[in-house]
Amino acid sequence: MRRIAVLAEGSLEYQRAKTAIGVIRYGADVGDQVVAVIDSTHAGQPLDQALGDPGGLGRGIPIVAGVATALDEAPDTLLIGIAPRGGQLPDSWRDGLLVAIRAGLNIVSGLHAFLGDDPELAAAARAHGVTIWDVRRPSDELAMRIRAGTPHRPGSHAVYFCGSDCNVGKMTAAFEVYRAARARGLSVGFAATGQTGILISGRGIPADRFISDFLAGAVEALTLEFCQEYDWVFVEGQGSLLHPAYSAVTLGLVHGSAPDLMILCHQAGRTHISGYDVPIPPLPAVRRMYEEAAGWLKPAPVVAVAMNTLGLSDEEARAAVEEAGRETGLPAADPVRFGAGPIVDALLAHTEE
Amino acid sequence: MRRIAVLAEGSLEYQRAKTAIGVIRYGADVGDQVVAVIDSTHAGQPLDQALGDPGGLGRGIPIVAGVATALDEAPDTLLIGIAPRGGQLPDSWRDGLLVAIRAGLNIVSGLHAFLGDDPELAAAARAHGVTIWDVRRPSDELAMRIRAGTPHRPGSHAVYFCGSDCNVGKMTAAFEVYRAARARGLSVGFAATGQTGILISGRGIPADRFISDFLAGAVEALTLEFCQEYDWVFVEGQGSLLHPAYSAVTLGLVHGSAPDLMILCHQAGRTHISGYDVPIPPLPAVRRMYEEAAGWLKPAPVVAVAMNTLGLSDEEARAAVEEAGRETGLPAADPVRFGAGPIVDALLAHTEE
Repeated sequence: MRRIAVLAEGSLEYQRAKTAIGVIRYGADVGDQVVAVIDSTHAGQPLDQALGDPGGLGRGIPIVAGVATALDEAPDTLLIGIAPRGGQLPDSWRDGLLVAIRAGLNIVSGLHAFLGDDPELAAAARAHGVTIWDVRRPSDELAMRIRAGTPHRPGSHAVYFCGSDCNVGKMTAAFEVYRAARARGLSVGFAATGQTGILISGRGIPADRFISDFLAGAVEALTLEFCQEYDWVFVEGQGSLLHPAYSAVTLGLVHGSAPDLMILCHQAGRTHISGYDVPIPPLPAVRRMYEEAAGWLKPAPVVAVAMNTLGLSDEEARAAVEEAGRETGLPAADPVRFGAGPIVDALLAHTEE
Repeated sequence: MRRIAVLAEGSLEYQRAKTAIGVIRYGADVGDQVVAVIDSTHAGQPLDQALGDPGGLGRGIPIVAGVATALDEAPDTLLIGIAPRGGQLPDSWRDGLLVAIRAGLNIVSGLHAFLGDDPELAAAARAHGVTIWDVRRPSDELAMRIRAGTPHRPGSHAVYFCGSDCNVGKMTAAFEVYRAARARGLSVGFAATGQTGILISGRGIPADRFISDFLAGAVEALTLEFCQEYDWVFVEGQGSLLHPAYSAVTLGLVHGSAPDLMILCHQAGRTHISGYDVPIPPLPAVRRMYEEAAGWLKPAPVVAVAMNTLGLSDEEARAAVEEAGRETGLPAADPVRFGAGPIVDALLAHTEE
C-alpha cells in the first residue's frame, strides 16, 4: 500500500487531470491511497469541488500549494499526475521533485521525458535511497519486438476499448467493465496500455512511447500473455483512428491486440477532436472505421457503446445513453453512472451466439 | 561525392538488399559512387548477376569477401547496406566495422540500434577522426513534435506512395516518378521517410524509428517544409495498412503527410504479406483501404498504380501492368521498366480537373 501525493500543478480540471483522477478512483482497488494533491492554483479548495466530479470523487483529500506542504500528510510516493503536451518536465517542477526526493519519497512519472535519465534527479534519488519509476519506459524485452501474428489461446476473448477521441473515458470504461465482469465471477484481466492504467494495475505497456515499428509487437506480447492467464482480456484503448496526431498509436493497438470484440467509448456532447478542427462523425461512422480497420487483419465487431456523461444531469445522461443505443443499434451504458451490466451482457451474448 | 563500400553480408538478393540496391540505383543522382559490395557468400561473382537485376544493375562493381579487401577500391564510406529484422548489429559485423573505422572510413548505418551509441565503435571513431551517421536517429527538433494539423501551402500537392506490403517498390516508384516529373520541368521534391531514401537524398525522416505519439508530427513537419519549397511533394510510403507488424507506421505517414493524391504501389504476383499468413486482397480493395483511412481526416484519391514487375519477362510485365489498370480502372505503369510517364500524366490530369 502506497501513500501517494499527486503533483497536478495548474491542471486540476476534470478533463486534464486524467492520471490523478484515475489513481484516486481506482487506486484503492490495489491498496493505494492518495493523501494529498498538489496544485497551487486550487490550494485550500475541497478536491471534489475542484474536480467537479458529480460522484464527489476526491472528497476529503487536501489540495496543497507545494510538495513541502504535502509532506504533512506523510506520503511515501510522489506521482506526476498530469501529462503535459509533449511530455517534457517543466522547469518549474524541478524544485518540488528535489524536495520530494530529499524527503525520501519515491517518484512515479508518466512523462515522455524520463526523469531517471535526468542527471540531477537521478543523483538525488541515489543519494537519498529512493526510486524513480518512469512508467512510460518500455521494457528491454519488448522495446524492439516485431509482431509475429500469433493467434491468442483458444477460448480467450480479447476486447479492445476503442474511442472517438483521446480522453473520452476508454480506460475508465475498461476498468468499470472489468470490475463488473469480475463481480460476476468471470476470469478477466485488464491489459493497461497507458501510464495511468499501468500505475493502477501495476502492469502493462506504455503503448504511445514505443517506436512505431515495434508498437504492434509489444501490444501483441501483452495481449498474448493476458490471454494465457484470463478468459477475458480487456485491452485499454488509446487515442482514436481519426485523431490527427495519434491515429498511428490507435491502429498499432487495434492490430497488435487483434481483438475478437470491441467496445466503442464516447463522451456525450463531444463534437470535435479535442484541440483540433476535426469533427467527430456520428457514432455509426466511428464504429465502421474501427470495424473496417480491425477487419483489414481480423474481423472484430463493436458490440456495445460506453458513454461518458460527465457534466450532464442524470436525466440528460440517460437520454444520451439511449440516443447512443438507438443511433448504433447496440447496447449502450454509462458504466460509471449507471453500471457496466449491459456491456458485460453484450460481451457474453456475443460469445454465446 | 562519396566512394561507398556497401556491407551486405549474407543478404545479396534482390528482395532483401533494399538499401544496397537503392544506393547503387539512385546514388549517382547525388554524386555517390558504390565502389565495392561486401558479401562473403557471393564474393567474386559479378554483382549484376548476384542481384539478378534485369537491367544489369551493379555491373562492374566488385563483390568482395570482407572490409579489408574492399579497401583496395579506396572507399571513403562504409554503408550498412541491409536492414536485419529487429535492427540490431549482428556481432559478426563488429570486426569489419572496426577495420573500416581504423582505415579512416566514415560509417553510415540505417540500423535501429544506433552504432554511435556503441562504446567500442564510438571510441574507435573518435580515435580515427571519422563520423558515424545513424540515419535512423530522429533529430532532436522533431523527436517529440505533436502533429498540429496545419494545412499545406496552397498550390502545393502532397502525393503519398502507398503500398500493398513492405518492399514492393514504393521508394523506387517515388524516385522514378520524381525523376520523370523533374524531367518535365515540374517543381518536385522527394520527401524520404526511410533510411535508404534519406541516404540517397541526404534529407528526410526515419519514420519507423519515431515514438508512436510523435510519428505523425514529424511527418507533418517534413511535408510542410517540402510543400513550402516545391509544388509537388512525393512522400515515400512505408509498410502497408494491412501489415500485421507495421500498419501503425503506415497510418502515421498517411495522416501525417495529409496527401492530396496517392499512388498505389504493388509487386506483380505478391499474394501475401511477406513473412505472414495474411493474404493481400485485390488491388481495388487495397485502394479502398487507403482512401478510407486517408478520408477519416482528409480525402485523397488513389490516381494511379505503380507496378513492380521484377522477375517477369517484358511480355508478362506488360500483361501485369495492363491487368492492374483494368482491375482498378486507373492508369498503371511499371516506372522502372516502362517509364513513369503515365503516372505523371495521372497526377497532372487530376489537378487540372
